[in-house]
Amino acid sequence: MAPTNHNLLVCTDVVDDKSVRILSKYSKVYKLADLEEERLDELLPSIDSVLVFSWPHQLTSDRLQRMTNLRFIQSILAGVNHIPFPSLNSNVIVSSNAGAYSEEVAEYAWALLLSAAKRVVELHVSLREQKWTLKRTLDEGSEITILRERILGILGFGGIGSMVGRIARGFGMQVYAYSRKKSTAKGVEFFAGASGLTELLKKSDAVVLALPLTSQTARIMNAERLSVMKKDAILVNVARGELVDEKAMYDHLVANPNFRYATDVWWYRESRESLKTDYPFLSLPNFIGTPHVSGPSGLATGRPVQLAVENTIRFLRGLKPRNIVNPEDYKTSYPY
Amino acid sequence: MAPTNHNLLVCTDVVDDKSVRILSKYSKVYKLADLEEERLDELLPSIDSVLVFSWPHQLTSDRLQRMTNLRFIQSILAGVNHIPFPSLNSNVIVSSNAGAYSEEVAEYAWALLLSAAKRVVELHVSLREQKWTLKRTLDEGSEITILRERILGILGFGGIGSMVGRIARGFGMQVYAYSRKKSTAKGVEFFAGASGLTELLKKSDAVVLALPLTSQTARIMNAERLSVMKKDAILVNVARGELVDEKAMYDHLVANPNFRYATDVWWYRESRESLKTDYPFLSLPNFIGTPHVSGPSGLATGRPVQLAVENTIRFLRGLKPRNIVNPEDYKTSYPY
Repeated sequence: MAPTNHNLLVCTDVVDDKSVRILSKYSKVYKLADLEEERLDELLPSIDSVLVFSWPHQLTSDRLQRMTNLRFIQSILAGVNHIPFPSLNSNVIVSSNAGAYSEEVAEYAWALLLSAAKRVVELHVSLREQKWTLKRTLDEGSEITILRERILGILGFGGIGSMVGRIARGFGMQVYAYSRKKSTAKGVEFFAGASGLTELLKKSDAVVLALPLTSQTARIMNAERLSVMKKDAILVNVARGELVDEKAMYDHLVANPNFRYATDVWWYRESRESLKTDYPFLSLPNFIGTPHVSGPSGLATGRPVQLAVENTIRFLRGLKPRNIVNPEDYKTSYPY
Repeated sequence: MAPTNHNLLVCTDVVDDKSVRILSKYSKVYKLADLEEERLDELLPSIDSVLVFSWPHQLTSDRLQRMTNLRFIQSILAGVNHIPFPSLNSNVIVSSNAGAYSEEVAEYAWALLLSAAKRVVELHVSLREQKWTLKRTLDEGSEITILRERILGILGFGGIGSMVGRIARGFGMQVYAYSRKKSTAKGVEFFAGASGLTELLKKSDAVVLALPLTSQTARIMNAERLSVMKKDAILVNVARGELVDEKAMYDHLVANPNFRYATDVWWYRESRESLKTDYPFLSLPNFIGTPHVSGPSGLATGRPVQLAVENTIRFLRGLKPRNIVNPEDYKTSYPY
């Protein structure tokens, strides 16, 4: 293959050497970790593509302005809310890695959903604290939830959401999906618009959040939307903490002890996801929290990296990259 | 319908009035709770059938010997290990309630399996104890387990086991089943005999116990069988605690920190299931325990009662009852 005039900046160590060699067939490849500050500054105007895990702190707003040739950004994280959209020129294409973690994250969503439905965490903690005798009955209102024939609402029906829905069939659940794009899927009932979302939330026994974090979806689960949900519903979040209003969620959990919120993702503090919360969620029995671990094992398999590399090659070869996002959706930046 | 010469003793309050009225069409019905000691003793020789939840303490071995006309015992609990088989005459038919709780218990098995695979309990507890920072990676060997394309072994392929297997398909797992009866099921590979069991245990990434507790299955998971399993396998028990050797399990969990045991069922103390253990299981991060709650919600729906009543009516009408167990399997009694 003839050498090209592309200059790709690889900004993360998770891209393995073999992938770098393959990318080198289509572009000059620079690894951010290998560049001294001065050399980086020198190269900036020539870089036309970057491959990032999450946006690197070295690429400050100032440096970004000097990347006048930048045309393509590929994220290895599925979501792109970490990309500094407000600082990008309109001719820069940004590709998410949608679907790269779908199977792992969908499995994780089910782990949280079932842990909450069957009160596994709550009961295990009670046993540890010796608050239990074997009586084979649970207090009224705090029974375990049987999922069969009940309704699972899924917000966002991309790779993760559709996989969550496929698994739901084995449990004999009805699946409702809220999706911006017109979709069809066997056995799934679709809802759209604000009124569709309200209807889905009213009817669902459990709801899984699998939406990207955009200007439209930030804090989509606010006090009003929580209030229409069933008093003993289960809400699962494997997408982004910021999809949920923090204060509204805490107040709702306190006011509705049989409502359950199980999340792997957290609110932002100083523009980064953080385990720090304004309210003591972890002291509530109807809250389950884990430290954003649904993805890493998927990362370890190398598949998300491989998909991001393949898509970068599409750009380098002059093909249209997949998973191009609409910058209009990311007017508000939520760095990772 | 003509009155019959049957005399049925209903030994549990969970049988509702409507069911008692229906049963009364086929038999005289006595409710144990309504009988004074003297009246009970008077009636014993005439009773030919009993409907129990678990075996009632009033029906002592002494009284059982005076029930010379007893021909049929129906259990509302799925398992019959609580029935005092050694004290029964050979002409007494015992019916289990196999299948009555299958869907609920299969859901619960998946809750335990996913909680263990994704380390939900362990991570949640770590967060509560503030032992975490958000680093998005887990230590080597303690990653979360991805289930897709891995092997799920199911011991016992009755109502619960087959339902657990059906759900596994949605997760893209391969299913291996160990079953005494020759079985076939789409996409399931069957194993039989001691060597088949060893092979299944060697190859499985996760194993669900869904066996009845019988003379053959008691402590089937002993030190030797645990030792052939993968070092990072997951064992789930929704059947009976006594299927597992207590000391062997504890030693195995201590020696293999990435092996996980998640159970809803417990060992027996003084012939009853008890949360008391000889070893501090609840202090181990690779143990998840819940207090035998997979069934009660199912009970609340009335379906298990209805199935037990229907089967009792089969006996009363002179039809062959379903779910007749082989008393040879229960030479050793494990009361509930």
